[in-house]
Amino acid sequence: MSGAISDPIDFATRERVRFYRELDEFLRIPSVSAKSEHDADTGRAADWVRERLVRAGLDAEVIATPGHPVVVGEWRGAGPRAPTVLIYGHYDVQPVEPLELWDTPPFEPNIRDGRIYARGSADDKGQLFLHIKALEAHLATRGRLPVNVVVLAEGEEEVGSPNLVPFVREHRDRLAADTVVISDSAMFAPGIPSLLFSLRGLAYFEIHATGPASDLHSGAYGGAVVNPANALARIIGELHDETGRITIPGFYDDVRTPPQDTLDGIRGLPFDADGYAREVGTIPAGGEHAYSPLERLWIRPSCDVNGMWSGYTGEGAKTVLPAHATAKVSFRLVPDQSPDRVKVLLEEHLARMAPPGVKIKVVELHGGRPWLAQPEGPLFAAAANALERSFGARPVLTGEGGSIPIVVELEEILGANSLLLGFALPGANMHAPNEWFATDCFEKGIDTLIHLYDELAQP
Amino acid sequence: MSGAISDPIDFATRERVRFYRELDEFLRIPSVSAKSEHDADTGRAADWVRERLVRAGLDAEVIATPGHPVVVGEWRGAGPRAPTVLIYGHYDVQPVEPLELWDTPPFEPNIRDGRIYARGSADDKGQLFLHIKALEAHLATRGRLPVNVVVLAEGEEEVGSPNLVPFVREHRDRLAADTVVISDSAMFAPGIPSLLFSLRGLAYFEIHATGPASDLHSGAYGGAVVNPANALARIIGELHDETGRITIPGFYDDVRTPPQDTLDGIRGLPFDADGYAREVGTIPAGGEHAYSPLERLWIRPSCDVNGMWSGYTGEGAKTVLPAHATAKVSFRLVPDQSPDRVKVLLEEHLARMAPPGVKIKVVELHGGRPWLAQPEGPLFAAAANALERSFGARPVLTGEGGSIPIVVELEEILGANSLLLGFALPGANMHAPNEWFATDCFEKGIDTLIHLYDELAQP
Repeated sequence: MSGAISDPIDFATRERVRFYRELDEFLRIPSVSAKSEHDADTGRAADWVRERLVRAGLDAEVIATPGHPVVVGEWRGAGPRAPTVLIYGHYDVQPVEPLELWDTPPFEPNIRDGRIYARGSADDKGQLFLHIKALEAHLATRGRLPVNVVVLAEGEEEVGSPNLVPFVREHRDRLAADTVVISDSAMFAPGIPSLLFSLRGLAYFEIHATGPASDLHSGAYGGAVVNPANALARIIGELHDETGRITIPGFYDDVRTPPQDTLDGIRGLPFDADGYAREVGTIPAGGEHAYSPLERLWIRPSCDVNGMWSGYTGEGAKTVLPAHATAKVSFRLVPDQSPDRVKVLLEEHLARMAPPGVKIKVVELHGGRPWLAQPEGPLFAAAANALERSFGARPVLTGEGGSIPIVVELEEILGANSLLLGFALPGANMHAPNEWFATDCFEKGIDTLIHLYDELAQP
Repeated sequence: MSGAISDPIDFATRERVRFYRELDEFLRIPSVSAKSEHDADTGRAADWVRERLVRAGLDAEVIATPGHPVVVGEWRGAGPRAPTVLIYGHYDVQPVEPLELWDTPPFEPNIRDGRIYARGSADDKGQLFLHIKALEAHLATRGRLPVNVVVLAEGEEEVGSPNLVPFVREHRDRLAADTVVISDSAMFAPGIPSLLFSLRGLAYFEIHATGPASDLHSGAYGGAVVNPANALARIIGELHDETGRITIPGFYDDVRTPPQDTLDGIRGLPFDADGYAREVGTIPAGGEHAYSPLERLWIRPSCDVNGMWSGYTGEGAKTVLPAHATAKVSFRLVPDQSPDRVKVLLEEHLARMAPPGVKIKVVELHGGRPWLAQPEGPLFAAAANALERSFGARPVLTGEGGSIPIVVELEEILGANSLLLGFALPGANMHAPNEWFATDCFEKGIDTLIHLYDELAQP
């Protein structure tokens, strides 16, 4: 239509229809990393990202790993004095089953009611795409970026990123950055832009209880032989006290209380208990009674049974006194708790709790450290400014109950600080059927990131 | 060899080799009632019992039921003033899997080290056969029995006797008896003949705990949403207190304390804790601390998890907060507890125990009333005399932790009292590979029953 545009925001506005068309193309690639039948698709998604980065004006390559490849894009034209920003995202998506619960096919993007419905629209293809378009908008209008940029897009986030930390270690010099920016999370509510100040860590165990040498008849032996399923139930039941506190001695020793203004911020957020109850189907009555639901989710550790099994689980009555009982039990951790320390405390505790006649064994299955940002510095100020410029409102600080272990790893290996600003909305079905991303957030997200690169260039 | 023998004991001694041969024939029939591929075998076993009863001198017929048939044998020549004894047993056997754990094939009886190894040798073909041979010994030598006899042999005991109570109700006049005699249990120890004075009852439930409407991410929701698996574990854990007592209010209200001489008898029995620990692979540390293992097994109720399941039970770590958790929990009951009353108490208790945010539902799967004999009367005296005459020792009174609901039913429908005297030995693998029956008990068992019919004829 018109001639050259000098403002990246104007560029993004003018090119919006093309951006939607490109996103549609990206979302149509079924890059389900968990399923080997989609390996070719996942590779295709990596190629797609590389090509879009190149077209935006970056150098980019697809680098093989023992699993799905990593895409690295680079633009280093801002000079050695300008900061370097590493943008992390992932181009793989969750499986789509159960397919019959999708209103429109997961890999045929459908825009209705202000939402883009498709697998990966929010998690994380759509949000990774925002960055690519913000970079393009800068380069297309100004011929340069205000900061040096490295894009790191992996294809295994939905399967636990097994190859990413080795990759980052191997390429630490190339990936070196002052700031890591990740858009893979949600806003607190529509119209309320958000910055993440914390992620909980994870310590995930399997607890094995063994009683008699083999399954016994519960009539002939019940009452004389200790039942390992009863014992395991008791042990799990006593992991919380009457007030919802975790009873493992020493468990709270390393829990750091966030600064007062963080607490004030959380307490100032509107929490819609009724809406929450409608969403999950039960009232938010878990955890420590002394804390609000948001505090319990964001700044307090938790303990959940993820699975348990013992004895006869078929139809009807079988009178067996089982030889074994097993539970998967995981803890969400907050700074400065560590999975290693929690394992030691749990093992010591269970050794004390095991009744005579039952052996308890703890196996660690997975661990990740919690993350806590310093929201006071220039980094959060830059992000807050960028969000305010596009959304017209200062962001709120929010926590995340889940874990993204890669954040702590990236910070440590690269010596960077992280900025987690996401544009999905609550209820976006990120791991469920009918995943969606709001068009409003899509558009304001690109604007925000255009502003963000500018803001991050400020000294 | 010699001429006519007038004494049944002498007859049994002389015919012993033939008796073993016949038992071998009986045990070779794989009458596994649980497996439809053995339906013809099970029918064959019924025919075999009928034929042996007829050859012994009884009238006998095989009567069809909706399941496996019942064999009824009768001899009514003792006259209306003589008592009538109903002998109950079963000709079906447990499945034999896992086959590879048998030292010799389960349906190829093998006598070694004073034991007859075969499926059904102890439970219950071998013990039913003892009665047939004792009856034969009387009839062959004296031409009559000292009492009227009805034999009731079913083929569904190992699958819960689904058709027996309706059968007994339908034929109650024909089956009417003063005394029910059952040999389907074990002696306390080698050389120590035993009479059962009690059987525990059973109340078997499935407990369902439901939290959120669907499985949730344990990071995003853990700490705010009550986890139904944690809740169920706590509820099960708190079913016992620190001393092993069951905590359900009112649960012990109906527990009758046995007479002092019964208690003295139990306390006088030698209990080999080390041998028990070797047998089951763990120390007998379950149940109420205030009672001895034998008391806990025989005269105290118990509560066992028979199965439980929730959430993710596959390999590795899945961070799910499950929507449901389920446990199969059963109680062994003692007089005068009833399964119906226990169900009411459990439901009331769980309604109080369910935390906010979790729904609890109780489903009853199976129930059976406990049984307690009156060991003081002439019935036990007759049995004790018979056992002493063959074993050379007065029997001890023992309880049984398991349940045989049919005993109470037979007593009530027929208006009879029961005598449970079994000849298996502890560790006979009655539901396990390498089931065996001691030859010594086989021989003394026939003698005992020969004496028993005489003793029961005494006014």
